[in-house]
Amino acid sequence: MEKLYMGAAFYPEVYGKDLPTLEEDIAVMKQGGFNVMRIAEFSWSCMEPHDGVFDFEWLHRIVDRLYANGISVIMCTPSVTPPDWLTKKYPEILMMNDDGNRKQHGARRHCCSNARIYRNYVRRINEKLAREFAEDPAIIGWQLDNEISPQGRGCSCPTCMALFHEHLARKYGTVENLNDRWYLKLWSQEYESFEDVPHPHEKTWSHPSLIAEYIGFQSDSHAEFLHEQAETLRKNGAKAPIGTDMMPIYAQSYPKTVGPLDLVQFNHYNTRANLRDVSFWFSYMQGLKPETPFWVTETCTGANGAAAANGGEYPLGFNRVNSLMPFAFGAAMNNYWLWRAHPGGHELMHGSVITSQGRPVYNFNECVDVAKILTAAERFLTETRPDYHGFAMSASCKVGVMSPAQPIVQQFDYRQELINSWHDLMGGGMLPQVQEPCMPLDDVKVLYSPYLLTLEEGDFMSRLADWIRAGGIWIAGPMTDIRNADGAKYMDSPFGLIEKLTGVYRAYGMTAHSIPAWVDWNGTKAETGIWTDVFVPGEGQEVLARYESLSEEEPSPFSGGAAAVWCPVGKGGVIVVGTRPSREALQELVRFAFCRAGIALSTRSSANVLALERSGAEQGVIAVEVEHKPGTMILSGQYRDVVSGEEYSGEVALKPYDFRIFRKIGG
Amino acid sequence: MEKLYMGAAFYPEVYGKDLPTLEEDIAVMKQGGFNVMRIAEFSWSCMEPHDGVFDFEWLHRIVDRLYANGISVIMCTPSVTPPDWLTKKYPEILMMNDDGNRKQHGARRHCCSNARIYRNYVRRINEKLAREFAEDPAIIGWQLDNEISPQGRGCSCPTCMALFHEHLARKYGTVENLNDRWYLKLWSQEYESFEDVPHPHEKTWSHPSLIAEYIGFQSDSHAEFLHEQAETLRKNGAKAPIGTDMMPIYAQSYPKTVGPLDLVQFNHYNTRANLRDVSFWFSYMQGLKPETPFWVTETCTGANGAAAANGGEYPLGFNRVNSLMPFAFGAAMNNYWLWRAHPGGHELMHGSVITSQGRPVYNFNECVDVAKILTAAERFLTETRPDYHGFAMSASCKVGVMSPAQPIVQQFDYRQELINSWHDLMGGGMLPQVQEPCMPLDDVKVLYSPYLLTLEEGDFMSRLADWIRAGGIWIAGPMTDIRNADGAKYMDSPFGLIEKLTGVYRAYGMTAHSIPAWVDWNGTKAETGIWTDVFVPGEGQEVLARYESLSEEEPSPFSGGAAAVWCPVGKGGVIVVGTRPSREALQELVRFAFCRAGIALSTRSSANVLALERSGAEQGVIAVEVEHKPGTMILSGQYRDVVSGEEYSGEVALKPYDFRIFRKIGG
Amino acid sequence: MEKLYMGAAFYPEVYGKDLPTLEEDIAVMKQGGFNVMRIAEFSWSCMEPHDGVFDFEWLHRIVDRLYANGISVIMCTPSVTPPDWLTKKYPEILMMNDDGNRKQHGARRHCCSNARIYRNYVRRINEKLAREFAEDPAIIGWQLDNEISPQGRGCSCPTCMALFHEHLARKYGTVENLNDRWYLKLWSQEYESFEDVPHPHEKTWSHPSLIAEYIGFQSDSHAEFLHEQAETLRKNGAKAPIGTDMMPIYAQSYPKTVGPLDLVQFNHYNTRANLRDVSFWFSYMQGLKPETPFWVTETCTGANGAAAANGGEYPLGFNRVNSLMPFAFGAAMNNYWLWRAHPGGHELMHGSVITSQGRPVYNFNECVDVAKILTAAERFLTETRPDYHGFAMSASCKVGVMSPAQPIVQQFDYRQELINSWHDLMGGGMLPQVQEPCMPLDDVKVLYSPYLLTLEEGDFMSRLADWIRAGGIWIAGPMTDIRNADGAKYMDSPFGLIEKLTGVYRAYGMTAHSIPAWVDWNGTKAETGIWTDVFVPGEGQEVLARYESLSEEEPSPFSGGAAAVWCPVGKGGVIVVGTRPSREALQELVRFAFCRAGIALSTRSSANVLALERSGAEQGVIAVEVEHKPGTMILSGQYRDVVSGEEYSGEVALKPYDFRIFRKIGG
Repeated sequence: MEKLYMGAAFYPEVYGKDLPTLEEDIAVMKQGGFNVMRIAEFSWSCMEPHDGVFDFEWLHRIVDRLYANGISVIMCTPSVTPPDWLTKKYPEILMMNDDGNRKQHGARRHCCSNARIYRNYVRRINEKLAREFAEDPAIIGWQLDNEISPQGRGCSCPTCMALFHEHLARKYGTVENLNDRWYLKLWSQEYESFEDVPHPHEKTWSHPSLIAEYIGFQSDSHAEFLHEQAETLRKNGAKAPIGTDMMPIYAQSYPKTVGPLDLVQFNHYNTRANLRDVSFWFSYMQGLKPETPFWVTETCTGANGAAAANGGEYPLGFNRVNSLMPFAFGAAMNNYWLWRAHPGGHELMHGSVITSQGRPVYNFNECVDVAKILTAAERFLTETRPDYHGFAMSASCKVGVMSPAQPIVQQFDYRQELINSWHDLMGGGMLPQVQEPCMPLDDVKVLYSPYLLTLEEGDFMSRLADWIRAGGIWIAGPMTDIRNADGAKYMDSPFGLIEKLTGVYRAYGMTAHSIPAWVDWNGTKAETGIWTDVFVPGEGQEVLARYESLSEEEPSPFSGGAAAVWCPVGKGGVIVVGTRPSREALQELVRFAFCRAGIALSTRSSANVLALERSGAEQGVIAVEVEHKPGTMILSGQYRDVVSGEEYSGEVALKPYDFRIFRKIGG
Repeated sequence: MEKLYMGAAFYPEVYGKDLPTLEEDIAVMKQGGFNVMRIAEFSWSCMEPHDGVFDFEWLHRIVDRLYANGISVIMCTPSVTPPDWLTKKYPEILMMNDDGNRKQHGARRHCCSNARIYRNYVRRINEKLAREFAEDPAIIGWQLDNEISPQGRGCSCPTCMALFHEHLARKYGTVENLNDRWYLKLWSQEYESFEDVPHPHEKTWSHPSLIAEYIGFQSDSHAEFLHEQAETLRKNGAKAPIGTDMMPIYAQSYPKTVGPLDLVQFNHYNTRANLRDVSFWFSYMQGLKPETPFWVTETCTGANGAAAANGGEYPLGFNRVNSLMPFAFGAAMNNYWLWRAHPGGHELMHGSVITSQGRPVYNFNECVDVAKILTAAERFLTETRPDYHGFAMSASCKVGVMSPAQPIVQQFDYRQELINSWHDLMGGGMLPQVQEPCMPLDDVKVLYSPYLLTLEEGDFMSRLADWIRAGGIWIAGPMTDIRNADGAKYMDSPFGLIEKLTGVYRAYGMTAHSIPAWVDWNGTKAETGIWTDVFVPGEGQEVLARYESLSEEEPSPFSGGAAAVWCPVGKGGVIVVGTRPSREALQELVRFAFCRAGIALSTRSSANVLALERSGAEQGVIAVEVEHKPGTMILSGQYRDVVSGEEYSGEVALKPYDFRIFRKIGG
Repeated sequence: MEKLYMGAAFYPEVYGKDLPTLEEDIAVMKQGGFNVMRIAEFSWSCMEPHDGVFDFEWLHRIVDRLYANGISVIMCTPSVTPPDWLTKKYPEILMMNDDGNRKQHGARRHCCSNARIYRNYVRRINEKLAREFAEDPAIIGWQLDNEISPQGRGCSCPTCMALFHEHLARKYGTVENLNDRWYLKLWSQEYESFEDVPHPHEKTWSHPSLIAEYIGFQSDSHAEFLHEQAETLRKNGAKAPIGTDMMPIYAQSYPKTVGPLDLVQFNHYNTRANLRDVSFWFSYMQGLKPETPFWVTETCTGANGAAAANGGEYPLGFNRVNSLMPFAFGAAMNNYWLWRAHPGGHELMHGSVITSQGRPVYNFNECVDVAKILTAAERFLTETRPDYHGFAMSASCKVGVMSPAQPIVQQFDYRQELINSWHDLMGGGMLPQVQEPCMPLDDVKVLYSPYLLTLEEGDFMSRLADWIRAGGIWIAGPMTDIRNADGAKYMDSPFGLIEKLTGVYRAYGMTAHSIPAWVDWNGTKAETGIWTDVFVPGEGQEVLARYESLSEEEPSPFSGGAAAVWCPVGKGGVIVVGTRPSREALQELVRFAFCRAGIALSTRSSANVLALERSGAEQGVIAVEVEHKPGTMILSGQYRDVVSGEEYSGEVALKPYDFRIFRKIGG
């Protein structure tokens, strides 16, 4: 990848197929340094105004005029918004609610991705679209659909149910096997046949294994739907890379979705309050296809919103840092949603680059600044990649689906706790590559896996054990390895692997709230969090933290018990963790692991600064301040600021929302 | 109008058609000074116990006995509560929920006002009722139905949908026109025909223009239903004025509803916490039919409630001031709901004048006091009218419906913000006549229009422009004139009129929360509120307020930009306002406008006191303390208290919940 | 009853009908001192895997192995979880939601207890079960179904509606009578026939009398369903006592449910935050069948939960005190739910005695302690019963159903207010026997009846009046005796009995919030609470408390009015109470009553200690600390600690969560 992109989502056809705003739009794009536009995502009715009647002239004109002005194009398939004539003719393709009613035309993503008729119509429009634009030099990428993901408990239509039953039959073989693995003797739930398995209605107190299985099935159906689209495009000549824009939610499996696609496209909307969260997701997205830069397909210059603007704060400089941050993590594109604010409809209060009247928004100058920095840093950014030095952190979509179905502890939110763990690592010189269990462990030296309920994803458990024996250091827990692939417990041990592999023994386990206690982490005391496992160390194992009573009046039954234990295994080992560590304790545990794995700490910084090392053709480090306050970082060696050209070494002061790129120029 | 009324809603038939409590009730009424009762509103099953079988004997007895005791009667049509036999026979007249189920018998307002069969039965019972009572001298007025208004997204039955499609066809001519005006190319929403437009289900993310159009249609249907009822009554001889009791909510259009009716009837229930709010509504109600005194058809002596009494506080004196206040604003009647507390059923805990056992409630003496004051002040109150000196404030039902469908800013509540603006004007000697855009501007000198999203109501925009050019001073904003009649934006300017008329230019616009800042209002600093527009003044325009940064750490991109600009236009001008003014700032802006319009400030008072000037056969001022604390007002000239007869001038101290009527007797 | 039990709910079949964990389970049971297990409650599909195919072999094996190891069995009927094959074959037996959809297989309690086919299948499986186990010496009791109770507004299926209409016809005779008694002339609600009465949908604003009647009908249906089950068991030879496990909620009538059953079974789940609440329920449960010890059929060693553990705290000692407390109130059994944590499914995070892997939980030692104490105290506990000295407190399921249908005051929660009243009595030496109005008053000397909306339950009102005239002292109110059996008001008085019986007169009534005031309770001032009735005392009556204004600025219209009045009646009398008394005031009122009734105060203690006297073959007192802090009690006389053997007299210090049994050994 030799080019970086700044762009936006562009819907000029909304104002009429004669595109009255097009030339004015292009003029402002050029003024701002925009070099890509994403188009056509919702425009099925413009492409195919009537069943079998196609019109791409307006779309060619958009593409041609953009290209003529040096602006590339991401072409979208319009499947998310089928025209009125289609759902009117075939109402059975609309998603079914739990009450048996179908969804209505007039919103979006209201068709069932399993509906064959719908898929056929999608294939036809995609064939046409591909044939029109496959060879167009303007097209640098394709986007499939938009933000597809199971909503709530997904569609409950007969087609989905029939396919779900087929899926269960394929997976479980016999219904008796399913009954056993889900422990359906409980409550006399045993099914006589796969056909008896119901949709897990929201209002029913449904079995957690059924809920997770159904969401997983819906996610698979969506993935299949997307992959079918990708195949259609490719069969019809599409050469540019194909992706689908995904959101920072978990119901839709990222690895399954992006598997056969060419690159990762990611949408995010953050505010001052949660800007730092998105850095977790950037690392995650990059980890899904480590060799290919990901694209931010949607973010905002300021207020997100629909028919009402949201309530977030967007201080001066927010737009700039929010737009640049993905490039630190390996992105090659940052796109705004949307170019020109909508003139009416559901999302007319969503932020944009220019207003509906074509006037640039108040922080348009920050977009201009972003474009300039990307130009200045293009070589450094495209010839280096983020370097995590072999430290990785597990994040699993499978657990992301299993966990809401069985949260283990009230209010436990897997997604948020992963982000909290990420935050706790910031500043310590130990930012990890976030990665799914299905990804290889070859280059990983230390793996941190908090709340990873199950290890049963493909061959992960055995690969993990092998990797540990061969020298890997695994920081496991709390709440890791406590469920099998079906979401049930192991019967011989609270864990699937940990006790067997290490010989450690879990004496007791309880929510942290039920029996609050202190944990002494090598001298630093912190309250227990979320969960408490009490371990009995085996021979040769080292206790890293112990529980203590809160006070004499509040004695803990766990007092003196081990909260974290270092268990050497082969050439590597496992640090089992029984409760949520504090920030200090987590960094201590990671340093302990780094020491054994021979990893040196990366660039240190204050906790509000992401310091991300880069390597490749050159060496360097990128620093991002994410909390709108002053920060610092400590450079070890001599560096040059890629944008300003100034030299730096030692402690560097960062301004609120600073984004700095330092190229290493000396030891 | 030469008489003032104090009354209540009266349901003696509930205890049996032999009316066992009637004489006891009348005795207490006379003791309390009650001179009107509203009856029969829910009594269809007593009037027509079986299909086509009528019985009005019991009703005549009530009317006759009341009249014989000097008590007049408001007769109600019973359409809100159709009998069991009717909805059982024709279940298709019941309203339809979004899930396709019909509403149940056993509550009220459960029939669809568009159902033809229902309307026919309503016409028949109304014909009978009118023929029975048209000539009855006891009847001083008619009330149609009860508190009719679209609930949620209204009825979704096939009849409603067919009529809605006809309505759309009439309004938009072609479906292409609707598609264009609602910008339905977005999301491929374009309809092939009007018949394809769906009901906007609550659970669907529906188009804001569809939502607003449908609520408006339901409101129109209700209005048509009421007007049909009024016609029936008139055709059958009814002479007394006809109205319908309306609530302080916005889904039902006030102007369309009261248009062909004879007077405004208004229901309200306030507590200590929000008593002052209702004064806004009194001004509003009076403004709908300025020449005709309005009636308060329902309020309460104390706790409102249904099967549970509400949690409001009602201090001593509350009943008195709550009952007298409407007369200050031009009412001719105050009715309690209800006379005798219900003995059972849905509302048995609702407050009343006497208990179910016939015992007067604890503040019955305040009712007696009200009756005495009305008698003492009857001449003054009926021979003078509220005098706002040409100051008016816009309030629009059209915006009231558009705004929930597209709130612009999260949590924005048009109704509440209007009331907040009204409160900010209290005490400053500048209480406005609240009025709908459809009302004439002839007598208006200064018009204040906050949050008036659209000016496109009939010919309001052009009348307004003419009025300004001819000398009117318009205080506009924030969030005024930003949508067309369809709820879409203007494409050439953020405003429909403001920029074109004045030459001012809006550089930027953003929610106030996204970019908080100070506003310097001529020396008084206040935080921005709700929205911020940044203006560039044109030639000859005067900046009245500017934005400032909150601090060095929180610089605002708007710092130094204009937040309010005075734009002379012809003989008048416009004060454009970009953000919510503070109380002080708003009063400053109005004084600025008064000065240019030649309006003198009215009677000044403390902020907890409504000081309402009256003119007509005499001059005077009425003062109402609404926050249950001491207050003051400053009389300019010599006045006599109409009730006590004492003379006053200069500063007058008011007691908590004081209600004082001062007749001017000298310069 | 000569034996005390500690047990658990046991589901070994869940792991396979070959019962792989059984022997391991039994070994741990014996180690812990467990002597009873409750089994088979959800195991219909194991007993009858296909329609008419039965298998009890596995069940016999469980029973036999337990019995062989000295562990008794409670056998459950499995009706709460019908197998898949049954509801698939007869979907019409599933409960119907308000929207017309049926509930789904896969949860529990999803069948309609009125469905005849379902009842027949239940009868058949129960016959089989009874025949298998009626003679089994292991079986010490039977449990019917599980936690049956109307959920929300209950089932709305056609079978239920038809039976409801029959029920109404039986109860009201003619529909005109129902129309009159429910005052259905209001809102033209009158029904033409019983068949017209609809189900009270949650979304409909339904009539409170209809809601209460329907919930009552559903409760009756459930009771009938249970009684039919008991009859089946008995007919087929079952000898051991039969009960059904009930929850501390009110929708299901306790007296009707337990009427023809043999004993009371009770499930409860408390945490540190509400542990003291459950003592109220223990007194209540014991009062339903005073002569027969009740069984705690479910409680928890620690965290309750489903797919997530709950957030309650369970300090050291909680399990012990929670398990022992019921024995103080007359229980003969404490059972945990559940023995072994579920390996998967809906409730896999629910606390247990051993984990899914068979490891004892952290407070297993407290179970062991409980077993030891029960052994040591078995003689004292079985040969004495709780002794309330003739003090009782009313609690009514009828009011429990009426009150949510018409809460009188917003947020009023009858159940919680009863518990609050109970708490206010703690420590004062005046713990009452909680009892339903249907229970005899023979041994009662003082009856305290707060919030007892209606006295119309069977002949309670007349029995009560007779009892008062004969010497009983009744503390009545607030909000007592204000509704008739239909939930309507009395027309001649605000009360059904109080004014007529005593001659006191209620001048005014209002929610306490509407008109806040102080009450002077014999020198102790407290704010009014929930409601305020103002009384005018009759001749010979004594005012015990008066209202006062909060301040000069907040004058109360009730100032000087009577808030509580002592009204002698015959040899007894009534203390009418107009507002919620403070803790001090309530204790003062009870002492006043005790004094007149000749009751001496029982053992006094600090407010966090339940001190419960026992009498029978011996005398004694049991003390339970329920707030996890130090406490005290004052023994009058010489006592011996039944467990430690030590002697005590005078003030005794109690530790947090202490449970002490003192046998009287001298004056």
